[in-house]
Amino acid sequence: MSAQLPGLFLTFEGGDGSGKSTQAALLEEWLLSQGRTVVRTREPGGTDVGNEIREIVLHRRGHIAPRAEALLYAADRAQHVSHVVRPALERGEIVLQDRYLDSSVAYQGVGRELEADEIRRLSLWAAEGLLPDVTVLLDLDVSIGRSRLDDARTRYDRLESEAAEFHSRVRDAYLALAAAEPARFLVLDAALPVEELAALVRARVSAALA
Amino acid sequence: MSAQLPGLFLTFEGGDGSGKSTQAALLEEWLLSQGRTVVRTREPGGTDVGNEIREIVLHRRGHIAPRAEALLYAADRAQHVSHVVRPALERGEIVLQDRYLDSSVAYQGVGRELEADEIRRLSLWAAEGLLPDVTVLLDLDVSIGRSRLDDARTRYDRLESEAAEFHSRVRDAYLALAAAEPARFLVLDAALPVEELAALVRARVSAALA
Repeated sequence: MSAQLPGLFLTFEGGDGSGKSTQAALLEEWLLSQGRTVVRTREPGGTDVGNEIREIVLHRRGHIAPRAEALLYAADRAQHVSHVVRPALERGEIVLQDRYLDSSVAYQGVGRELEADEIRRLSLWAAEGLLPDVTVLLDLDVSIGRSRLDDARTRYDRLESEAAEFHSRVRDAYLALAAAEPARFLVLDAALPVEELAALVRARVSAALA
Repeated sequence: MSAQLPGLFLTFEGGDGSGKSTQAALLEEWLLSQGRTVVRTREPGGTDVGNEIREIVLHRRGHIAPRAEALLYAADRAQHVSHVVRPALERGEIVLQDRYLDSSVAYQGVGRELEADEIRRLSLWAAEGLLPDVTVLLDLDVSIGRSRLDDARTRYDRLESEAAEFHSRVRDAYLALAAAEPARFLVLDAALPVEELAALVRARVSAALA
């Protein structure tokens, strides 16, 4: 179980469309069938304060200073961890969370003015140092999608090119995070069949529960 | 003028009732009479985002995790510095601000779970390191008010006692901050006559402008 708390804290990371929700749902089903108590959550979520913060960030994008935005996200995390995640872990439950710390570092640290370690330090301070026990990274090769597109057309327009570049940098950032903490991360090829991925996730979680 | 920017950044600090607003108003009047452009401000203030953050913090007090609250205040500061203070300083104007960084450290760092240096680090990060050129600390001896109350009554009730203890600790925190940065702080005895204080403030600001 958790190094610090009686429960187990599991997070799912990866790009949009990598299958995080599908795998979280399959894992939840399996855990419930084992008689476990599961809290499935995401940020912002589960707290009124988080929803109000989301309103500020989403409805005023473009007028918010980068550090103000990062601090608002961190405030949401502080509230969510303090009011939802940590209490569940203290009750010995299993928390399955869609995106956490690593998303902030991979996304906010790429293509923004802020450094990845500043974001990580801020996030960890907000969460009072709470790291997941296991983080499943569903890694999808950006170039697969890209090479298919290359076959169909001879060149990218500027926006498509920038988007591909952005996603490629996010992917690299994720892989660097996983390489830095191999004990916490389970990196899976998101192109594998859904059931095969689910079995690999279950094996890793079983070991963590044992 | 400012070490980093063409304008001058002046802040007023001290307990409630120490005369910050009165002194800021007198200084503003004098600066305007000298043909200076002055921006008088406070936090939260001057930005929509700041007002929305204030709504969250004030209307939900008691349900907010301490770190979430500290991060929300820091987000407000980041927005205010980025959108109000720094642009004014870049235009070469004089910013007079009622409370800033030192208030956060003195108040949030006392009687809360968070350490004063964590608060300072967070605030400075939010403000991209912007420190005032001059900070006027209007220092009021808590024991003066307290001894008068002692004459009238034989004992404090618990709450009054705690309040006096709190204000005494805030005062000590302010004085420690001033001692650590003597070049930035002008510490004045707030019990002096208003005009005498105003003259001392003007002398210090004149020197900074020269």
